[in-house]
Amino acid sequence: MKTQEGVIYQAKPISGKLVGEAKALIEKQDVRGLEELVAKMRPADAADLIENLAPEERAFVFDLLEPEGAGDVLMEIEPPVQERLLSGLDNRAISEIVEELDSDDAADLLGDLPDERARQIIEAVPDEVSEELEKLLPYPEDTAGGIMALEFVSISVNATVQDAIETIREKREEVENLFYLWITDDDEKLAGVVSMRDLVLAPARRRIGEIMNPDVISTNVAADQEDVVQLVKKYDLVAIPVVDSQNRLVGRITHDDIMDVMEEEADEDISLMAGVIRQEIAEESTFRISRARLPWLIAGLFGGILAAVVIKQFESSLERVLAISFFFPVIMAMGGNTGTQAATVVVRGLATGDIGLTNVGKRLLMELRVALLNGLICGPILGIISGVWLSDFHLGCVVGAALVLIVLASGVIGSAVPLMLERMNVDPALATGPFVTTSNDILSLLIYLGMVTGFLSLFS
Amino acid sequence: MKTQEGVIYQAKPISGKLVGEAKALIEKQDVRGLEELVAKMRPADAADLIENLAPEERAFVFDLLEPEGAGDVLMEIEPPVQERLLSGLDNRAISEIVEELDSDDAADLLGDLPDERARQIIEAVPDEVSEELEKLLPYPEDTAGGIMALEFVSISVNATVQDAIETIREKREEVENLFYLWITDDDEKLAGVVSMRDLVLAPARRRIGEIMNPDVISTNVAADQEDVVQLVKKYDLVAIPVVDSQNRLVGRITHDDIMDVMEEEADEDISLMAGVIRQEIAEESTFRISRARLPWLIAGLFGGILAAVVIKQFESSLERVLAISFFFPVIMAMGGNTGTQAATVVVRGLATGDIGLTNVGKRLLMELRVALLNGLICGPILGIISGVWLSDFHLGCVVGAALVLIVLASGVIGSAVPLMLERMNVDPALATGPFVTTSNDILSLLIYLGMVTGFLSLFS
Repeated sequence: MKTQEGVIYQAKPISGKLVGEAKALIEKQDVRGLEELVAKMRPADAADLIENLAPEERAFVFDLLEPEGAGDVLMEIEPPVQERLLSGLDNRAISEIVEELDSDDAADLLGDLPDERARQIIEAVPDEVSEELEKLLPYPEDTAGGIMALEFVSISVNATVQDAIETIREKREEVENLFYLWITDDDEKLAGVVSMRDLVLAPARRRIGEIMNPDVISTNVAADQEDVVQLVKKYDLVAIPVVDSQNRLVGRITHDDIMDVMEEEADEDISLMAGVIRQEIAEESTFRISRARLPWLIAGLFGGILAAVVIKQFESSLERVLAISFFFPVIMAMGGNTGTQAATVVVRGLATGDIGLTNVGKRLLMELRVALLNGLICGPILGIISGVWLSDFHLGCVVGAALVLIVLASGVIGSAVPLMLERMNVDPALATGPFVTTSNDILSLLIYLGMVTGFLSLFS
Repeated sequence: MKTQEGVIYQAKPISGKLVGEAKALIEKQDVRGLEELVAKMRPADAADLIENLAPEERAFVFDLLEPEGAGDVLMEIEPPVQERLLSGLDNRAISEIVEELDSDDAADLLGDLPDERARQIIEAVPDEVSEELEKLLPYPEDTAGGIMALEFVSISVNATVQDAIETIREKREEVENLFYLWITDDDEKLAGVVSMRDLVLAPARRRIGEIMNPDVISTNVAADQEDVVQLVKKYDLVAIPVVDSQNRLVGRITHDDIMDVMEEEADEDISLMAGVIRQEIAEESTFRISRARLPWLIAGLFGGILAAVVIKQFESSLERVLAISFFFPVIMAMGGNTGTQAATVVVRGLATGDIGLTNVGKRLLMELRVALLNGLICGPILGIISGVWLSDFHLGCVVGAALVLIVLASGVIGSAVPLMLERMNVDPALATGPFVTTSNDILSLLIYLGMVTGFLSLFS
């Protein structure tokens, strides 16, 4: 991945050649060779290598890493693989890693361990580390407190630029990737922000209060992580200070954490919409993957059986015109597709903040218009085809009219349900889940079979 | 949204009260009052306000903004609304806005205008602006060149820290949000990076070459924007330098651009998977929304008619046992759900880089195992229920066995198709599109009707 100039151009998946090389060294038990190979790699690249090894080879490579480096590599490894690696390490090894990690990573790692083990680790690490952990662990995972780190730099509004530089120098090792210096007033409350760039340009004796920007955007420690993401994205921030209810600085969240949350939230929405419940993409256990997918399949199975019961009610119509059953797939696909389209746009809009709850009426009206238009286009097509096929122009009209109604109903339900769920504080991504899709299927069948049966009983 | 301390806690959708206030001022044509209201707002907040006004009110507010501020507000407005606003502005107004924008935003804005208008604007703006635009416009939108800005700060490896600070001071107005100083060697090639933090801590007379980190990660100007995102995420960068084929620095991409691309790509994948082709969430035109959704509906319509033709081939089985048709919905739902689940995990994994093409065999084998397991769980359930219902234990067995096969086939197809598309350089998100879902529906019906028909003809 490196060119001769030492410049990386592309984040390609790790090369098969490198994985092969590592595998050969492992087979030869060539510790020296492996150490050399891994020493040259950045943490993210070493993590890629380890993920691509067989489970029994991973620990061999991981154990060669120094405690300082091992933590950074571990944090880059996908959760299911990370979990397996951790379960193979003893408490001493984990404690050493935890000591070297940033506070937020250490808390995440501990949060993933079984309770008993986490307690043992907390007892084993030095006091300053366990104090930090006990500050962070109480916050729910999906809040600002749950993703923030305690490593930040702040200084009093009365300090000078020179004081600030000295403080940054002292915290040089502890706080990596420093972009902003946060300023506190005499009551320890967040009062402003100075960017590193402005600090570079400021005269050493200037008072910080004079160069700071008092218009600082912060987030409360209890805020939902999705709200934090929207705040950071809206105002293009690189890091955001986290404050308590008294507006005192308690932590910081950096851009990389925000990107992780963005990806995690998109993953979750996409999975839920496809009926997959919390499956890690890197999951390797057949049973766990199966368990993540079965609930929707089973729900869909019983929904389908309910649809069968519905169809049975119209048995006499089917006996008279068997061809009615030929159109079940198209009727269900059209209802399903229309509903999914509308629901997906609304779910995504709610997730990114592009759709709010202020304009629900306007959104529903628009979806209604779109569904009506699309129904009026698709209905006649199916009407003409089925009319010609069945050599029954009137029945064709009824089939076409049923489709118009089905598209209309599905479009409105597809957009209304996620909005309703959001208002009820339920994850709107469930709107494309088993309940709604099955209801849509059954409703579509009911409209279709009801209209056709009505027509048959009227004209015979 | 502001508390008394001037601190914003949450990126909430704009308040209805504020929108109402603005509407009242517009109705009274109170220019002074509106100017005061808008002057206090950040660009992103003013953009929110404008989006929430009626189309005819928006221009009234937008025209009140100063040219410097107007551009920043415009860039925060959702594309469909932005487009409408721009079409109402004359060339002079647009030129003034373009002059004030960062180069990447200016190029984006021009790229969205009709060609003829874009040319007129390029002729109207000062030479230094049009030169920048002509540098950026040739790059395709979805490459590093298409998202980079020309505003960056670089300095020679031989300069001193003091020289660097002077350069930053000179470019203070031009380059906002500066996090890294990039270092070039005697051949103008990218040779290293210095963070603003390290610059703060370095003695003024130190040579830049001594404090720089030579291990700088860059991206080529022609790289796909998705690869750039993966690179930035993998190595937790705040900004990435863009180089040409000679490794000369040509631009920079910052974290906010990366977040925009992440969101854009996730939007695109989610939309495509739901059969919505490039619909902006904020789109307000019924016809455009309809046009974004119709292709899949029409494709699904004809796919469904094809399914009807398939069913017709098995007419005689249906005539013998009408109840066979009752299970069409459950058969199709199970095939569809299994396929969607498998496809979604693979599509998302490919998009985030968690799944590569190195381990295709392993992934397929795992999906095969999962599908087999889930099939073996769902098949017997349906078998028993249908057996009892139809009072035909043997037919129930056949229905159950058909479902096992359907789940197996759908799971394998659902995971194999996106991998195949990725290898062919086609967007894998299409794997959940009309072609695959319709094929899955038809395949499921064929397996089901084929097995049932075989059974009926054997045992009668």
